[in-house]
Amino acid sequence: MRDLWYSEKYEEDVKFSVKVTQHLYSEKTPFQQIDFFDSKTFGRFFTLDGFMMVTEKDEFIYHEMITHVAMAVNPEVKRVLIIGGGDGGTAREILRYKTIKKVDLVEIDERVVRLCQQYLPLTAAPFDHDNRLVLHFQDGLDFVQTAKNNSYDLILVDSTDPIGPGEGLFTYDFYHHCERLLSNVGILINQHESPYYESDAYEMKRSHAKIKASFPIAKVYQFHMPTYPSGHWLFGFASKKYDPIKDLKSDKWESLGLYTKYYNTKLHQGAFMLPTYVKEGLENV
Amino acid sequence: MRDLWYSEKYEEDVKFSVKVTQHLYSEKTPFQQIDFFDSKTFGRFFTLDGFMMVTEKDEFIYHEMITHVAMAVNPEVKRVLIIGGGDGGTAREILRYKTIKKVDLVEIDERVVRLCQQYLPLTAAPFDHDNRLVLHFQDGLDFVQTAKNNSYDLILVDSTDPIGPGEGLFTYDFYHHCERLLSNVGILINQHESPYYESDAYEMKRSHAKIKASFPIAKVYQFHMPTYPSGHWLFGFASKKYDPIKDLKSDKWESLGLYTKYYNTKLHQGAFMLPTYVKEGLENV
Repeated sequence: MRDLWYSEKYEEDVKFSVKVTQHLYSEKTPFQQIDFFDSKTFGRFFTLDGFMMVTEKDEFIYHEMITHVAMAVNPEVKRVLIIGGGDGGTAREILRYKTIKKVDLVEIDERVVRLCQQYLPLTAAPFDHDNRLVLHFQDGLDFVQTAKNNSYDLILVDSTDPIGPGEGLFTYDFYHHCERLLSNVGILINQHESPYYESDAYEMKRSHAKIKASFPIAKVYQFHMPTYPSGHWLFGFASKKYDPIKDLKSDKWESLGLYTKYYNTKLHQGAFMLPTYVKEGLENV
Repeated sequence: MRDLWYSEKYEEDVKFSVKVTQHLYSEKTPFQQIDFFDSKTFGRFFTLDGFMMVTEKDEFIYHEMITHVAMAVNPEVKRVLIIGGGDGGTAREILRYKTIKKVDLVEIDERVVRLCQQYLPLTAAPFDHDNRLVLHFQDGLDFVQTAKNNSYDLILVDSTDPIGPGEGLFTYDFYHHCERLLSNVGILINQHESPYYESDAYEMKRSHAKIKASFPIAKVYQFHMPTYPSGHWLFGFASKKYDPIKDLKSDKWESLGLYTKYYNTKLHQGAFMLPTYVKEGLENV
């Protein structure tokens, strides 16, 4: 019987492996290597350059946490910019809000979108069904450099790690333009790496230093993401005006009646209460 | 060059692997298989029946979280019972409180204690240095069945999974006796498995049903434990009187001046704010 395993190295001496029932598709684009697999425990999943991006089993955790935290702080958000997120999961969650007028999604690699439409409808469905969503196949840094001031209420940076195509999204220049594009109540959420393994923790500190220098409010929140290295993952919450805890509108958010499998407004508050070693890592930057 | 990997299966089709620089020791006792390894990323670690128990890199997370949550709710605790915990890490943390008068540690397998004394002084040091600690090499269920009413203020169940020697510690009989042994302000903390992989989630629900039936207050709190399956792990907090949030004594605990790398009194509160799917799993038992 065929015994095929996908393995991902968390460090040179640490790896996570999943038995693959089928290797569905593989393509090398000008930007990255894309692969789709099926597995028993995680269902279908896809990888970019050998890093697990989305699995059917736990994508809801990442996509709920990148989206609903900001929306519960400012349920008035109308104009959204998603940088990355070519799988569609972040767009799917944000488009659940009827109040959202427009979502620009800027994905550098059109093939990610097209292949997710074909192989991962669980996340990619909104690409076909929602005309509030506009796709831009373009580099995220280029996009923000040329966009107009005060164009968005919310920016969601759903990027890969700062190696390869995601690199420009972890720079001062990028965060500066995000600040410029946001309205005076604007919020920026970004994929903020992890505190545990050394290389992830290094990037966590680097991003935080840059975001802190670009926004008056810059906090970090955590969640349990079992298919990412260590399972301990972070998002950044940066804003011009709103504090993620003091300005949380629990009653308002709950009145919307959105069912979420991971997010809730209590967890929202808990997610900002970080372990001491993580707080120290973020303070000493 | 030798290429030796320790692998642990989280499910039949999911595994976590660590490159081993040295396999230091291996012994089969009447209770279980014990192994000690060295590795670059995690330092020294040991396994029981092939499951990772303690690594030098992240043992502080588990041992701080099993101990300080209860102590910050009742800093008056004097008499402690530890069931399991043969590595010594839980005893080390609890003995940092000068107010503790006596700790009974009941470990079924003396070899775990002796080998940790030899190979893992980071956790096993208190076995040599603290005469408030009394070791009992005995089955935990037998111990609680014969101990007197009202003997302890705090019971910490630092057990393996409910397969093998830890099995009796996940029964109604065991929790009933814990309740009997505790004073009227007593607290029980137990290793409560994980919500993510199917077999762990099954045990999480089973334990919770039994504890809820045995104590008026039964809550669950979470933490990020990267070397346990999924990295999403839980402890149970059961008590006769104290609520873990309403009765948290943050000022009192902070006045003790204990430095902790993971635990803090804000995180304490956040740890009880669980994802929706975990809450649902615990409610439907």
